[in-house]
Amino acid sequence: MSERAAYDELVKKTRDIQLLVSTAGVLGWDERVNMPRSGSQLRADQLGLLAGMIHEQFTSPRIGELLSKIEQSDMVKDPESVEAVNVRELRYQYDKQTKLPKSLVEEITKVTTLSQSDWMTARKNNDFKLFEPWLDKIFGLMRQKADAFGYTGEPYNALLDEYEPGATTDQISQVFETLRNELVVLLKKIANAPKKTDKSIVEREYNVELQRVFGESVAGALGFDFSAGRLDVTTHPFCSGFGPGDTRVTTRYNPKRLNDALFGIMHEVGHGLYEMGINKEKYFGTPMGDAASLGIHESQSRMWENQVGRSKEFWSYFFPQAQRMFKESLGGVTLDQFYGAVNDVRPSYIRVEADEATYNLHILLRYEMERALLNGDIKPKDVPAEWNSRFKKYFGIEVDSDSNGCLQDVHWGAGLVGYFPTYTLGNLYSAQLFATAKKEIHDLMSRFERGEFLTLRNWLKDKIHQHGQRYRANALCQKVTGKPLSHEPLVAYMNEKYAGIYGF
Amino acid sequence: MSERAAYDELVKKTRDIQLLVSTAGVLGWDERVNMPRSGSQLRADQLGLLAGMIHEQFTSPRIGELLSKIEQSDMVKDPESVEAVNVRELRYQYDKQTKLPKSLVEEITKVTTLSQSDWMTARKNNDFKLFEPWLDKIFGLMRQKADAFGYTGEPYNALLDEYEPGATTDQISQVFETLRNELVVLLKKIANAPKKTDKSIVEREYNVELQRVFGESVAGALGFDFSAGRLDVTTHPFCSGFGPGDTRVTTRYNPKRLNDALFGIMHEVGHGLYEMGINKEKYFGTPMGDAASLGIHESQSRMWENQVGRSKEFWSYFFPQAQRMFKESLGGVTLDQFYGAVNDVRPSYIRVEADEATYNLHILLRYEMERALLNGDIKPKDVPAEWNSRFKKYFGIEVDSDSNGCLQDVHWGAGLVGYFPTYTLGNLYSAQLFATAKKEIHDLMSRFERGEFLTLRNWLKDKIHQHGQRYRANALCQKVTGKPLSHEPLVAYMNEKYAGIYGF
Repeated sequence: MSERAAYDELVKKTRDIQLLVSTAGVLGWDERVNMPRSGSQLRADQLGLLAGMIHEQFTSPRIGELLSKIEQSDMVKDPESVEAVNVRELRYQYDKQTKLPKSLVEEITKVTTLSQSDWMTARKNNDFKLFEPWLDKIFGLMRQKADAFGYTGEPYNALLDEYEPGATTDQISQVFETLRNELVVLLKKIANAPKKTDKSIVEREYNVELQRVFGESVAGALGFDFSAGRLDVTTHPFCSGFGPGDTRVTTRYNPKRLNDALFGIMHEVGHGLYEMGINKEKYFGTPMGDAASLGIHESQSRMWENQVGRSKEFWSYFFPQAQRMFKESLGGVTLDQFYGAVNDVRPSYIRVEADEATYNLHILLRYEMERALLNGDIKPKDVPAEWNSRFKKYFGIEVDSDSNGCLQDVHWGAGLVGYFPTYTLGNLYSAQLFATAKKEIHDLMSRFERGEFLTLRNWLKDKIHQHGQRYRANALCQKVTGKPLSHEPLVAYMNEKYAGIYGF
Repeated sequence: MSERAAYDELVKKTRDIQLLVSTAGVLGWDERVNMPRSGSQLRADQLGLLAGMIHEQFTSPRIGELLSKIEQSDMVKDPESVEAVNVRELRYQYDKQTKLPKSLVEEITKVTTLSQSDWMTARKNNDFKLFEPWLDKIFGLMRQKADAFGYTGEPYNALLDEYEPGATTDQISQVFETLRNELVVLLKKIANAPKKTDKSIVEREYNVELQRVFGESVAGALGFDFSAGRLDVTTHPFCSGFGPGDTRVTTRYNPKRLNDALFGIMHEVGHGLYEMGINKEKYFGTPMGDAASLGIHESQSRMWENQVGRSKEFWSYFFPQAQRMFKESLGGVTLDQFYGAVNDVRPSYIRVEADEATYNLHILLRYEMERALLNGDIKPKDVPAEWNSRFKKYFGIEVDSDSNGCLQDVHWGAGLVGYFPTYTLGNLYSAQLFATAKKEIHDLMSRFERGEFLTLRNWLKDKIHQHGQRYRANALCQKVTGKPLSHEPLVAYMNEKYAGIYGF
């Protein structure tokens, strides 16, 4: 068998596997958007069968044989070639998936299914004691998982690597810590600033149907292609890129809050534009046809939501339109007042409701906590006290209950340890990439004032989207911005923006 | 291996296969209801992969081995036992699917894909010559298919059997021919009758959103469970029962026609009630968890659409509600006028727009034509002349173009030969079953006047739905009605109803 034939067979196999993954994607989307309540058991059975088939096919020894054959050939000599990239990333995934013993996978599935049910009760009843034993079990299993994967440095690296391939605590901790210190200072400045923002402006009556129309017109202006995508309603918004020509985003509408759906749509559309920008027509089913990492994915959603969607220039263009649509609530509001309202910063308990500035503090607290839990530096029983004392230090306010504190997120109970940092990585990459875009496209912001967003979209497609997994996240950042990941662009962006809004 | 173990393995396998079938069902539903235009190639690839896997798994020699093992055991001694039914029908399907050579399946797929494209052009341009060579090819392939399946009597039996297992031309032709003659007489009576119906009543303005609400309230009253199902919009309405707890129907709304969506919903809900009435919680993935035949399926949809939905008693209950909803169009209309309008009979060219009485004539014409084409008694080039002369004889009007004649249906171009009769079988079974229901539930019609439809629904569940494929269609008919399939109940029902409406 020639190396070319081995490569072709490999691609055929991974393409078929990806068709099953995307089939499961459609089923998952349908489950959240359409499925009648009584269909849940059937859906679980369908998805369970598909997951088993996908795992079995991807971990079959034949995949390993084909990879070895190609790895020894000249096909992978140029590390940036399509073949080399695909083989590098498939090898990485194959080794990861074959390293996990089936018994451990099953145990994690079993424990996290049960724990999530108790977590829901615990959060509802503010009863940490109910959840505590599960934390113990889950972090024990996470240590076993890290051991199975193997790691250098601390075990957390093995888990982080699953969500952000190539990232390590060494690489990100220094950046995170500096960011945290800067944000604590920024929050104090805002709290003591002479000017205030009026959040109540975006908490008036906003007709849901008009919100939808406005959201779709924004999505279209940003470049979301409705002939290759949809916007629907779900309780928990998400984006799902099934494959070439089919990328779907969801949102939720609140008739008393304009921000939720509006910025939610821009966020998910940011993910969607990434999915649409990858060359899936050519590379679907291989790493070249897939996103670089969760962090880079989040950088796209956050850029469109914040750097674009919360900019003065964006609203110069869209505010008159919003005023016409929501006459009663926005009729007497000025652009500056509205711009202030959508950029309102104030400490709050709940991560998913946090503003752009405090959001990262929520993440960094969790990153520190989960590392310490995994290393054994904190015991599960100490989680509430530890959480609350850090929260006081970073946000300046007291946590009033564990439900509004350490019990608020599903992640730990679901076994998602190592996932949180990708949110802040997304914000950091977002600011660093956007600063570069502004440098390279000198009139970028004034284009926004004219409602022209496709220049940025095309720049992102060229610099990020089209490369798929050609570069790992850190290498991509270096290549596009000329520098490794840094706290500076995000800190500079925030300081400049909030200085303007709050007048400090 | 014990027989019980063989049976359990067989059920496990067919259950997993059915999970894949139902997964393809969700993808197919999504394709018609939601999918963005550009997603069609990906969807075709997903469905193609699933179809291949389903075929491969179901025709694997292991299925044959397991069947043989069980067939020799005591497990199948009682022919009505769950095990005996499942083995009987799985054997039947297995033999059918393994008899077709792969090359023939592929050839049929290739030819019908191409021919459908030319059929669309031919219909649009009224150009029979473009379609003629495809008819020749397709009926040639259909003869090969019949040969591969094997048959007694004429080759058409092999094709008919695929859609209506156990049915033969011997069984149905006599019934069909008598029905045809009776319908021709009935049409003449109606044409010369003293009373007329005013169809324009249902062709006024009917707000689409109100149509939806009205349609859903009717569907709910008939017993459609919206916690285990949905109603959506598609160009070509259909019903899809994925499995336990998830049955979905679709319709299309026309703001100038009340009938389309309203009776369309009752039709699809009839299919849906059948799917919901089968004991899928217990039998999903085996023949006991599946519908008896296309003919029986159609009997359920037609019963709710016609025997129930076009009855005077149904509208005694629902007409006041309809009047309140559609004040402007129905305000001055009497119940009798409305009842006449929804039962308007008049010869027309297009099958899918035909009324209850003429519909079967459309089908019978096609049944005669496709049998003759398969037997070689008609050549493809003679189809238009042959079609038009029969049409004149049965309907009393001249066909004005092939687009309104022999080119109107997708079926032949799609290789669906032997399918048409199931529509008329559905109407016949529907009338025969309903006549029995009326006998066994003495106040059935007056229950409709009170808006009480669940008695009929439960009767159908008990007599038909819950049995899955325990009985073949003809045996089921005999068991429930005490008689084999007959033209009499349908002819009697129509004569009585139209005598009342048209006063002959």
